[in-house]
Amino acid sequence: MKPNTAQKRIEGVLAPVITPFRKDLSPDADRFARHCRWLMKSGCAGLAIFGTNSEANSMSVDEKLELLDALVHSGIPAAALMPGTGHCALSDSVRMTREAVRLGCGGVLMLPPFYYKGVSDEGLFRNFAEVIERVGDERLRVYLYHIPPVSNVPISLELIERLIARYPGIVAGVKDSSGDWSNTKAMLDRFKDRSFDVFAGSEVFLLDNLRHGGKGCITATGNVNPGAIDQVYRRWKDADADGLQAGITATRKIVQKVAMIPALKAIVAHFGNDPQWRAVRPPLVELTSDQERSLVSELKASGFAMPGLA
Amino acid sequence: MKPNTAQKRIEGVLAPVITPFRKDLSPDADRFARHCRWLMKSGCAGLAIFGTNSEANSMSVDEKLELLDALVHSGIPAAALMPGTGHCALSDSVRMTREAVRLGCGGVLMLPPFYYKGVSDEGLFRNFAEVIERVGDERLRVYLYHIPPVSNVPISLELIERLIARYPGIVAGVKDSSGDWSNTKAMLDRFKDRSFDVFAGSEVFLLDNLRHGGKGCITATGNVNPGAIDQVYRRWKDADADGLQAGITATRKIVQKVAMIPALKAIVAHFGNDPQWRAVRPPLVELTSDQERSLVSELKASGFAMPGLA
Repeated sequence: MKPNTAQKRIEGVLAPVITPFRKDLSPDADRFARHCRWLMKSGCAGLAIFGTNSEANSMSVDEKLELLDALVHSGIPAAALMPGTGHCALSDSVRMTREAVRLGCGGVLMLPPFYYKGVSDEGLFRNFAEVIERVGDERLRVYLYHIPPVSNVPISLELIERLIARYPGIVAGVKDSSGDWSNTKAMLDRFKDRSFDVFAGSEVFLLDNLRHGGKGCITATGNVNPGAIDQVYRRWKDADADGLQAGITATRKIVQKVAMIPALKAIVAHFGNDPQWRAVRPPLVELTSDQERSLVSELKASGFAMPGLA
Repeated sequence: MKPNTAQKRIEGVLAPVITPFRKDLSPDADRFARHCRWLMKSGCAGLAIFGTNSEANSMSVDEKLELLDALVHSGIPAAALMPGTGHCALSDSVRMTREAVRLGCGGVLMLPPFYYKGVSDEGLFRNFAEVIERVGDERLRVYLYHIPPVSNVPISLELIERLIARYPGIVAGVKDSSGDWSNTKAMLDRFKDRSFDVFAGSEVFLLDNLRHGGKGCITATGNVNPGAIDQVYRRWKDADADGLQAGITATRKIVQKVAMIPALKAIVAHFGNDPQWRAVRPPLVELTSDQERSLVSELKASGFAMPGLA
């Protein structure tokens, strides 16, 4: 299969958008679209909806397809979307990926099947290849999702090499959420000039990533601090880039002192004055009031704000 | 919610039934029912369909519901079924569990949501409680599925304690696939006289489990060696029980020299003379011919047979 090379690729800062739930824990499409609009006007170049921070795996495929459809019909440009479409079940991955391409999404972020551990590169190659072949669309852009601390199923450099060789232009990049800069650097070095876009999985590595040819970052805190992170992306060649990077790293360190997903939701609930945002689906648990209070007060003391949210 | 106490519980040997796939990797309901019938007439007291060895997480909820429905309508008694219904997504777990109860299944085997790692017992409690409450049926029997080597999300004794206290009779037992007899023993000791049925996750521990008050085993090799395993279950008080146990342990050790799921499928393909059984879904990979040849020859040398299969 050949890629449609005229298609523009997403670059810059992407948020793995948190998912709002109603009191009965059903996904809330209106709140979701509202937060997506705020992100797009506040610095995000794209939206990696249905990622780890979106509690994507805590939702059924039907629930996600409904949210995706509603989001696109609410006016968010599909070309800016990079939904997570990788599931344990081959059939689920095919269905979600097909629908994302049909709606015109700029790319898809694909987890490996993550139930079985210690599986072979051959088995993972077959998984991605089956999805690509069954979707069979030149518009498909697959970004591989390497997040071994959560999935416990790593995506090796050798596997990436095989996938790029077989599907050049279709296998378009990676999100490296290993938290290990030496791994990101190895990807950048090995796959440069291969039309393979490396995104850091945290803004902590954004400046390093850009200086070595990376294309941006897809980061949890993009949900709450997109403007400042985008400034590092836009001004990485400027003299004060290291200072800007230090600023976003400091904010990240405050947020990640507690559990990341409930923390992001608590921040949006607080600064957006919208308590229902605190809801998480099991197995996650919301922050305690004490945790939230101390998180918010530390953020405020650092000068953090979310202009235009409330 | 109160359980229907008149309902008989499953005891004995259960197979986590392997799932046959066609050439296009779609699930094959006819082959599946055929294998289930062979298992039930060959020593299995019940069928833990949609377990780890069933590649359950490699199938969509729709695919599993179709197989379940076809199986029940093929004449397999629903009371003998203990389908896996635990998913990462709360909504998927509710849907599968509700349907299993509606069809009259004797129980359900429930994985914890397994994407996020290091989650709290509170979060896992809420997951199981939400499923039980939303299904809201006195016929529901939940067997917790503790398989930390694969799920990487353990079910602690404290969590079980909370669940039994809140849902006595509904939370009916556990499959312990930790591979750690001291953990199984701790469950047996702590929850005896609590109407909580402990199943060993491997026949290697069957005799020990029965001698300490356990109810049987749910074991991969139940797919190929149900008769001999059932003999240990039926004759565990006999003088030759240790000898019978040594026999099934020896067979297990031959099978688990290679990857378990493709091995089980290769054995059924070979002894049932039905090559299509070898198909696995990615990320699994079938055995090489060399692996299969040496597995089969070692089994034959040990006197292994599958009477009535071909």
